[in-house]
Amino acid sequence: MHKSINIPDSDLPRIVVIGGGFAGLTFCQKINTKYYQVVLLDRHNFHTFQPLLYQVATAGLEPSSISGPLRKLFKNKSNFYFRVGAVEKIEPENNLVRTSLGKLSYDYLVVANGAKTNYFGHEENYEGAFPLKQTAQALSLRNSTLRCFEDALLVSDSTEKQALLNFVVVGGGPTGVEVSGAFSELKNNVLPKDYPELDFSKMKVYLIEGSNRLLNGMSNKSHEDAIKALKEMGVEVLLETRVNSYKNELATLSNGTEIPTKTLVWAAGVTGNLINGLEPFAAAPANRVKVDRYNLIEGTQNIYALGDIALMATENHPKGHPQLAPVAIQQAELLARNLMHIGTNKKPTPFKYTDKGSMATIGRNKAVVDLPGNVHFKGIFAWFVWMFVHLMSIIGFRNRVVILFNWIWNYFTYDRSIRLILKASK
Amino acid sequence: MHKSINIPDSDLPRIVVIGGGFAGLTFCQKINTKYYQVVLLDRHNFHTFQPLLYQVATAGLEPSSISGPLRKLFKNKSNFYFRVGAVEKIEPENNLVRTSLGKLSYDYLVVANGAKTNYFGHEENYEGAFPLKQTAQALSLRNSTLRCFEDALLVSDSTEKQALLNFVVVGGGPTGVEVSGAFSELKNNVLPKDYPELDFSKMKVYLIEGSNRLLNGMSNKSHEDAIKALKEMGVEVLLETRVNSYKNELATLSNGTEIPTKTLVWAAGVTGNLINGLEPFAAAPANRVKVDRYNLIEGTQNIYALGDIALMATENHPKGHPQLAPVAIQQAELLARNLMHIGTNKKPTPFKYTDKGSMATIGRNKAVVDLPGNVHFKGIFAWFVWMFVHLMSIIGFRNRVVILFNWIWNYFTYDRSIRLILKASK
Repeated sequence: MHKSINIPDSDLPRIVVIGGGFAGLTFCQKINTKYYQVVLLDRHNFHTFQPLLYQVATAGLEPSSISGPLRKLFKNKSNFYFRVGAVEKIEPENNLVRTSLGKLSYDYLVVANGAKTNYFGHEENYEGAFPLKQTAQALSLRNSTLRCFEDALLVSDSTEKQALLNFVVVGGGPTGVEVSGAFSELKNNVLPKDYPELDFSKMKVYLIEGSNRLLNGMSNKSHEDAIKALKEMGVEVLLETRVNSYKNELATLSNGTEIPTKTLVWAAGVTGNLINGLEPFAAAPANRVKVDRYNLIEGTQNIYALGDIALMATENHPKGHPQLAPVAIQQAELLARNLMHIGTNKKPTPFKYTDKGSMATIGRNKAVVDLPGNVHFKGIFAWFVWMFVHLMSIIGFRNRVVILFNWIWNYFTYDRSIRLILKASK
Repeated sequence: MHKSINIPDSDLPRIVVIGGGFAGLTFCQKINTKYYQVVLLDRHNFHTFQPLLYQVATAGLEPSSISGPLRKLFKNKSNFYFRVGAVEKIEPENNLVRTSLGKLSYDYLVVANGAKTNYFGHEENYEGAFPLKQTAQALSLRNSTLRCFEDALLVSDSTEKQALLNFVVVGGGPTGVEVSGAFSELKNNVLPKDYPELDFSKMKVYLIEGSNRLLNGMSNKSHEDAIKALKEMGVEVLLETRVNSYKNELATLSNGTEIPTKTLVWAAGVTGNLINGLEPFAAAPANRVKVDRYNLIEGTQNIYALGDIALMATENHPKGHPQLAPVAIQQAELLARNLMHIGTNKKPTPFKYTDKGSMATIGRNKAVVDLPGNVHFKGIFAWFVWMFVHLMSIIGFRNRVVILFNWIWNYFTYDRSIRLILKASK
């Protein structure tokens, strides 16, 4: 089948946006298409609300609840075109993007394709590890986790059985804390009812972090509360420890310990999804591209980068901003506004990050919240705040209702209802 | 990994049940495990409510809403063991089942593994057709259907484009009627908002049936109402027509017509999921096994068959009962009761099918219902009856709430929210 990207010509300048994550989505929502033709490219036909991916991976939510079909989100927007495809190369000298669907010229390019899992630069040392950045990966982790318990019924060798019952989470950031907490809730509340034949005291959840604290970027109190809560829930937290390799279902730690495990979740770092042709501008560490205060990529005239892939050094953030959704969203909103001033006398506004606080959930009734001004709180109130903020941030009224219902259901029944081992047949 | 099926020995006689569909599930729910050890085997870890599979395939419902995790359904049942595995062979002479997990002996065997899609015995003539018997197949059809519209934006060749916009459904039973109705609703209500660039007058839905009527097994009035409603919705219904072959995305009909199509849904017939070792007893057409009035397979002493795979000839049903959920459920309930009388003086009760009526939905506000005593009705009231009966039949309060919410949402918004092209990554 011969495919072509097939965007109609227009008198308006064309903005091509790569990536429908928080940054790309917000930018497309805010940009005024009276003055620009906008083309959004993404490999998937839906936006993923990544902060709740771990709940898909642990059978608490369905993928559709944390996804928004991109076409639906833009169905009333004129001069807007969406295509499902992968970007193969950018040719800045020709103002051209080469994609799996053909080539596409642009007047302005917005690179918002985020970050991907980074195995300390050595993916080959971690074969079979589970990343957790995409919905398809969350489904794989769900399927594999459930299969571990089915298989644990079938094996008699004790090492094999222990490998099925050991769950190792690498990286003590919010994702690592949330995943290990969720695994421990499966152990404590959900799975023993399903598998009366298994001895769940043998199920172990490890959280392994290289630095000396959890939740880097949050307050020290949050670190302390998180570590205490996780330990109460039975998670073995190992600080100042790295996983040197993971091969043949054996994780080897920097302290020499070996943990046989079928499930190693990698949440220990990301690297920019660098596209061919952007290398000259990727002077920043971890494949990020350096941008100025207007998110313009340094060394280019008309290529912007937003969100996780952009590194904007400021007085407050000399090493760039944290790779978080609020940064991406605020940058996207500002760029959409600033692009309206091109060709006018009005000067563009430089970016200034408004930190509204950060939070992480650990489990049932357990969360930590830091607000600006050294305000910290934890426990059930923090947990409600976490739920409220996430519920309000997710796209679509339908999703909010479905997630809220699932959360209430899961809370009162101590259940996780999506316990299906299921993959589309082709 | 060495796997063994690993069921503890017991003083009680062991019943092995193959298949967790309507028959196997009901049997396991009803059998009293004070007197028997029961082992259920299924290839999946969940039960599927097949009557709503077509709504998963057409983006209306999530798989989890029509599924029940089997362990959860039996979590309080003692002497009950469930294993995820495939049966490879039955050895009636040794009272033994060979499975992908190892062998398993039985005192009584209950074969309830249903039926699979049958391409008139010539699967090789229909390459790339979509069957619709399993959840994984429904997801594949959903993914492929949505991808057709994405691709239709990208091709310029008119035949290629038309193949992407033609949807052919083969078989005019309830599934065929429901799928073609759902496709036509996508065309009329849902997709044009997503794809303003496409001309939806070119999207065609064909329903092709070999006999001279739709909904065989239902009343003539139901046939007439269904055909009228489908035509009003824009479905091209072709009766007395067969699809002779489907190759290279071209369907060739018995009348010589050729329809280029990327999507051919096969709902034209099933054949028993015959297991190796059962052949000597499979004298019945379509790989069904002949059973007596107590569901005992003819020629065996301790092997029963239930539901779609069983053929029980009676006065009212000389060619066997229809392959419907109510038959499977009633047979399973009776067998669970009758097995309690083995070894007592009480005689087992022969099976008698209680036909409570049959129904099919066509679309929004449109359904047909036949009740015993020649009662027929259609339209919005029939549609509500259809929804109520299906909602009450589905397993689990949570599923009922989620489905009801989705139906109300879809009804008032003219939406189908699960429009994700998504497959687990491994």
